[in-house]
Amino acid sequence: MSAAFDGGLPQLSIARAVEQALAEDLGSRGDLTTDATVSADATAVATFGARREGVISGVAVAEAAFQAVDTRVVFEALGRDGDRVQAGGVVARVSGPARALLTGERVALNFLCHMSGIATLTRRYVDAVQGTHARIVDTRKTTPGLRAFEKYAVRCGGGANHRSGLYDAILIKDNHIVAAGGVEPAIASARAHAGHMVKIEVEVGDLDELAQALKHPIDAVLLDNMDVKVLRKAVTMVAGRVLTEASGGVTLDTVRAIAETGVDLISVGALTHSAPILDLGLDFIS
Amino acid sequence: MSAAFDGGLPQLSIARAVEQALAEDLGSRGDLTTDATVSADATAVATFGARREGVISGVAVAEAAFQAVDTRVVFEALGRDGDRVQAGGVVARVSGPARALLTGERVALNFLCHMSGIATLTRRYVDAVQGTHARIVDTRKTTPGLRAFEKYAVRCGGGANHRSGLYDAILIKDNHIVAAGGVEPAIASARAHAGHMVKIEVEVGDLDELAQALKHPIDAVLLDNMDVKVLRKAVTMVAGRVLTEASGGVTLDTVRAIAETGVDLISVGALTHSAPILDLGLDFIS
Amino acid sequence: MSAAFDGGLPQLSIARAVEQALAEDLGSRGDLTTDATVSADATAVATFGARREGVISGVAVAEAAFQAVDTRVVFEALGRDGDRVQAGGVVARVSGPARALLTGERVALNFLCHMSGIATLTRRYVDAVQGTHARIVDTRKTTPGLRAFEKYAVRCGGGANHRSGLYDAILIKDNHIVAAGGVEPAIASARAHAGHMVKIEVEVGDLDELAQALKHPIDAVLLDNMDVKVLRKAVTMVAGRVLTEASGGVTLDTVRAIAETGVDLISVGALTHSAPILDLGLDFIS
Amino acid sequence: MSAAFDGGLPQLSIARAVEQALAEDLGSRGDLTTDATVSADATAVATFGARREGVISGVAVAEAAFQAVDTRVVFEALGRDGDRVQAGGVVARVSGPARALLTGERVALNFLCHMSGIATLTRRYVDAVQGTHARIVDTRKTTPGLRAFEKYAVRCGGGANHRSGLYDAILIKDNHIVAAGGVEPAIASARAHAGHMVKIEVEVGDLDELAQALKHPIDAVLLDNMDVKVLRKAVTMVAGRVLTEASGGVTLDTVRAIAETGVDLISVGALTHSAPILDLGLDFIS
Amino acid sequence: MSAAFDGGLPQLSIARAVEQALAEDLGSRGDLTTDATVSADATAVATFGARREGVISGVAVAEAAFQAVDTRVVFEALGRDGDRVQAGGVVARVSGPARALLTGERVALNFLCHMSGIATLTRRYVDAVQGTHARIVDTRKTTPGLRAFEKYAVRCGGGANHRSGLYDAILIKDNHIVAAGGVEPAIASARAHAGHMVKIEVEVGDLDELAQALKHPIDAVLLDNMDVKVLRKAVTMVAGRVLTEASGGVTLDTVRAIAETGVDLISVGALTHSAPILDLGLDFIS
Amino acid sequence: MSAAFDGGLPQLSIARAVEQALAEDLGSRGDLTTDATVSADATAVATFGARREGVISGVAVAEAAFQAVDTRVVFEALGRDGDRVQAGGVVARVSGPARALLTGERVALNFLCHMSGIATLTRRYVDAVQGTHARIVDTRKTTPGLRAFEKYAVRCGGGANHRSGLYDAILIKDNHIVAAGGVEPAIASARAHAGHMVKIEVEVGDLDELAQALKHPIDAVLLDNMDVKVLRKAVTMVAGRVLTEASGGVTLDTVRAIAETGVDLISVGALTHSAPILDLGLDFIS
Repeated sequence: MSAAFDGGLPQLSIARAVEQALAEDLGSRGDLTTDATVSADATAVATFGARREGVISGVAVAEAAFQAVDTRVVFEALGRDGDRVQAGGVVARVSGPARALLTGERVALNFLCHMSGIATLTRRYVDAVQGTHARIVDTRKTTPGLRAFEKYAVRCGGGANHRSGLYDAILIKDNHIVAAGGVEPAIASARAHAGHMVKIEVEVGDLDELAQALKHPIDAVLLDNMDVKVLRKAVTMVAGRVLTEASGGVTLDTVRAIAETGVDLISVGALTHSAPILDLGLDFIS
Repeated sequence: MSAAFDGGLPQLSIARAVEQALAEDLGSRGDLTTDATVSADATAVATFGARREGVISGVAVAEAAFQAVDTRVVFEALGRDGDRVQAGGVVARVSGPARALLTGERVALNFLCHMSGIATLTRRYVDAVQGTHARIVDTRKTTPGLRAFEKYAVRCGGGANHRSGLYDAILIKDNHIVAAGGVEPAIASARAHAGHMVKIEVEVGDLDELAQALKHPIDAVLLDNMDVKVLRKAVTMVAGRVLTEASGGVTLDTVRAIAETGVDLISVGALTHSAPILDLGLDFIS
Repeated sequence: MSAAFDGGLPQLSIARAVEQALAEDLGSRGDLTTDATVSADATAVATFGARREGVISGVAVAEAAFQAVDTRVVFEALGRDGDRVQAGGVVARVSGPARALLTGERVALNFLCHMSGIATLTRRYVDAVQGTHARIVDTRKTTPGLRAFEKYAVRCGGGANHRSGLYDAILIKDNHIVAAGGVEPAIASARAHAGHMVKIEVEVGDLDELAQALKHPIDAVLLDNMDVKVLRKAVTMVAGRVLTEASGGVTLDTVRAIAETGVDLISVGALTHSAPILDLGLDFIS
Repeated sequence: MSAAFDGGLPQLSIARAVEQALAEDLGSRGDLTTDATVSADATAVATFGARREGVISGVAVAEAAFQAVDTRVVFEALGRDGDRVQAGGVVARVSGPARALLTGERVALNFLCHMSGIATLTRRYVDAVQGTHARIVDTRKTTPGLRAFEKYAVRCGGGANHRSGLYDAILIKDNHIVAAGGVEPAIASARAHAGHMVKIEVEVGDLDELAQALKHPIDAVLLDNMDVKVLRKAVTMVAGRVLTEASGGVTLDTVRAIAETGVDLISVGALTHSAPILDLGLDFIS
Repeated sequence: MSAAFDGGLPQLSIARAVEQALAEDLGSRGDLTTDATVSADATAVATFGARREGVISGVAVAEAAFQAVDTRVVFEALGRDGDRVQAGGVVARVSGPARALLTGERVALNFLCHMSGIATLTRRYVDAVQGTHARIVDTRKTTPGLRAFEKYAVRCGGGANHRSGLYDAILIKDNHIVAAGGVEPAIASARAHAGHMVKIEVEVGDLDELAQALKHPIDAVLLDNMDVKVLRKAVTMVAGRVLTEASGGVTLDTVRAIAETGVDLISVGALTHSAPILDLGLDFIS
Repeated sequence: MSAAFDGGLPQLSIARAVEQALAEDLGSRGDLTTDATVSADATAVATFGARREGVISGVAVAEAAFQAVDTRVVFEALGRDGDRVQAGGVVARVSGPARALLTGERVALNFLCHMSGIATLTRRYVDAVQGTHARIVDTRKTTPGLRAFEKYAVRCGGGANHRSGLYDAILIKDNHIVAAGGVEPAIASARAHAGHMVKIEVEVGDLDELAQALKHPIDAVLLDNMDVKVLRKAVTMVAGRVLTEASGGVTLDTVRAIAETGVDLISVGALTHSAPILDLGLDFIS
């Protein structure tokens, strides 16, 4: 396999998301304009072109959007998810019934531009920490309904995924520690509650809390809102016994310095909650 | 009624979106961390606080998220959708079972931050054209699955909505005109095809096309990617006979000059496809 | 394109409606009789024949019903939606596994007969006003769950569609006017609330109310339950400034006289709420 | 219990049908007119009144429609399903938020008028055969998606239900007999295939086929398209050994004579496929 | 047709159940292990082998599971539902993309092993009563969500189905009799309430109750928890007028003696609520 | 918190499963028998009683089943999930409309008996290894559609959960190792592909494979089908560096010996794929 972002979007998830998006755009009445102005017999050819440089994500989703409108559409991917595309570059070529191309265009683009936007922003963070030990990871701060697609896009951009949701890993935060009566009982409860295949990470706000957490069998620590100096000390304290994740206040300006503290992971909410789209358009060529 | 954004999000739509988002975050296993570390009997109180200044949108959705987790949660809105909030301002107060507050927190925030982000960006555009005749409107470039919520957020920010989808209004673009064999047959077909309650807008790329379009009975013209000089001439040509919409290349830097050309509407895709979130958090106070 | 009813039923809508209808007829146990008495290997050929003269609607839905039962069924449409069919005429031919033809027969016919019934009744109204200016339009008085199919059938019969639902156009009725404090504030609120692509129609009960409504920027007036004399005066008063719609007490006996008053539109609830089916049957020929 | 139509519409079925109908009418945008013109604080009271005499069906569905819009609506049923109502009679009274009454009105009426129309037509058939032995029964010729509601309405009108679908009883028709190689193997296969709680009815077209069918252990015979004379002979031949059902060409003009032949059941497709609505309206009284 | 279990699982039911099971196993993230370790280009061949002797059920469901993962998988059934398979026997052969085979394996097996387990246990009961008059039937004690699949598996094992649910037949139990005020009014109400195609069975606990029940027009009696002596007397009393069903305390040890009392039917809850799986596995051969 | 099984079944999951089960039992027609024989006004009281000793699981699901039928039912839990109940013990008490109790009875029992059956069997395994180091864990061999409920029941019985599905942890089996070209590349790919919160377990068939696997950074080894002697050597080789899981051929007779080898975990497919129900019944007491 070529890449970490290979796989990971089940066909059923794609089909359901595309159906929902099409229902949203078509209602029960369909595409008034196209049905009125374009003959059912007309055919067309068009290409997906990037208006700006970026990283592609969502080609298979775009294809599924056209297929859901009309199975006769032929979709030819020219780029693959994870590829960099230049401004002016062509990502895919579609041909078939002109109505289907016009009706499916916006849904296909809305997925492709949104996902590529996330991949592109992720890639900028990943590039910024190149040469360091740190990996860029996402968070649960995702757009409602699209988490799987957004986490996939993060992988396309070279990032890695944090847990998928509340259900697949344990992240003990300050409120949990208070409620459980301390770090120790919190970790003990977590270990008793979850299966042996579930990892446990503990959020700490300063070095004292970190020292506390490290006394117990955990898999990772989330170093929350620490400045670079403190992060460096934390990494030294941990000494490779568990994974270290820096979180809070990460921007493209600060991420390199954070990475150079030696943390294993840097989580960036903005990857999924504030990435602008990558501007792509559909150009009809016949 | 106080405001244009009043109403417009059917309860059933909110319920379904919240269910989908919770399913995404909880899976079939639920909140591993909270179930393990927080007693079923524990209660808590928390407030939604804004980290930055902005415009609120989605308070009722946040409330619905907690209700879907546990009907015993009490949610008290302190701000209303469309209100400006200062950095440090409090938007709502929730109290009830501590587990429910912790489990519902992220879904509630993901909606509230995303929608408020759109409302906030919209308000910046609306403020930028204050005193002119122009209204800021959205597009169909929305996040798949969330169009109704995003268009509602645009209204919260003082913007207005373009059509909801392909089904409720006609927008004839260049490809439609080519396919129909000209502007005239395109408009005639559109009129014959759609009911009398459907409006027709025609996209034009220059003043010649505008002149053509104005010969026919339409409701609006979309002036696509014209510079300010051409826009001004277009507005003069139209002379109030139909609505004029400027589109393409609109930024916070350019929007005022565009508005001053006298156009009725300025559509901005970025409102929904590239708005960063408004940063809000849930602060536990007991 | 040949006809106003071309397009307008998204494939996803058809698929979902057909699935629902099949689930209703098959339950989880399937077709007890056919499974018991017909070999899985048997094949058959049958034709859809009209028992009475009428207008066809729903051929693609009938096809989808068989496809959902068994993708091996071959469906050959001999008539197209909107075509008139004589008593004894053949609308389509199906061949394939005998079980699938027998199991899918009733669902296919229930759609086809219901939709063709609406198209046929609509055509009678449309024919009755031939030569006048008036168009026959439907209402929101549709069978729950089937609105899009019924409105499509109205188009097949030569009618036009009023708004699709509460969401795509504004129709201000007396209760709205009272609640808003008069026609003027009602229209102003409506305009402020809805986007620029949304049309506004106002219902009036007499000429005074009509005079009031015409003072404001609206797109159409609904002349409710007026007799022919008053309608004629109303049309004169309006003088082409807005569209005029007659509504209430419209029957095949009265519709011509109403049309001759010069109104633009005549809405008929009975098209969708009280049309008898067009009697079609499936005749097995081998 | 008072009546045969008591029970039989599971709450979950009502809830799902009402949700579907509301989604159809509200889209994702809601009631544009009401949201714009009616204050969120306004309240109202209205009554459901019959414009014509008939039999009521669907009161609980109407109530559910308002509840789904706003749980604060108070719905007071003044008539019960199965009751006759006079023209001008009042069926129910609703009060609560004015917006909810206006928004839910059409969906509530669409169910109530459609179901009451079926109950009313059924009652006319039932009354026409009063004093005879025959019961009026429905068919599978129902409106797609609404079968359970329509069969319930038939019971409200004093009719009885034939099988619910292909899954709950066996009805062997000519094509099944041909495919199975005769009446005998068809009945044998049916008996072997279905459980002991499944009844078997055989369709016969003439007295010879009837004689054949009666040789085998079945529960009922469907006497298809026989004239009154032949029906009488058939009833004599059967001599009470199995139930007899007359079918085909039944109208209000012919049903009495058919009933007087002594058949046990008369099935009428028109009850569900061609009943006009019972005209009811919602009158706002404050 | 070859067998009573032919047909009876609508394609739509299979598709929906398979989708649900895949969603449960794949989540929104898919098969982490396979996506990571197996190339998208790799192909494989594997066979479904029985580890123990038994009766097969669910081959078509297993096939559908692979098709839902990847339509390129080729599935070749070597045995048919209802066939006995020896330990070591091969039931089916699958080939295609290695990823799809590995990802779909568990869902396919979970259906196949569960359904074959039921068929196998049913067959043991059916064999135990061979030569007697009695048929083995199932109950409503099924695994939630899988009733149609389990009842189908019972047919594959040579058993017959009792009613499908509360909706398709009447079974009057002691609580119903008490509530109705006696056997007679209970049966009368049941007959009036249900259509003519619905059978009525009455549960009796002793011979007195049986005598009561037999005075009324019913189709079957359920002889609840009677010992073999009483059952024999009951069969004599009934004398073939209605079907007799023995129920309660039926095991493989007792079923033969019960059958020899002459009852028509013996219902066994354990068929569906306590059958261990038939152990089958997927063996990769290349 | 009292117990490891506390929490973990999201309300939305329960609601959806209960709806599905009720739809399966009620169809669109409802409970024919109860509607016919029991007055809508009648009330009743009943208790859930255990016929055999066991461990309870699913009390909240049983409650939800009645609530979904009629919100007026009062459900009083007398035992809690995870509690042992004696034969004759009472688990819960329900009161309310008699119709609702009779209609909801079977769905409530089907969940409660199935889940309690799994909890009871799990408890037997857990008791069998008492005093050893080993924990009993489940597998993905679950009944389609019910995995979350079954894994919850395992926790109620004192067992622990393996991964939830293919999506939340990595388990590298022999086919994956072959496809990846060896243990090393398989583990490397897995690590690169999955996020840092995902654990990795490797299946090994003998001590050589175990030695290979231990060279790489993994979290657990699955010791597949090893006899007790080999297991003991494996545990010694691992020496606590990773978790050890024994799998294959585990029965109540063999589990203790396996546990005494010192393995950390013993996975038992039978817990979920072959547990007989725990026999509980609903006894009407008034």
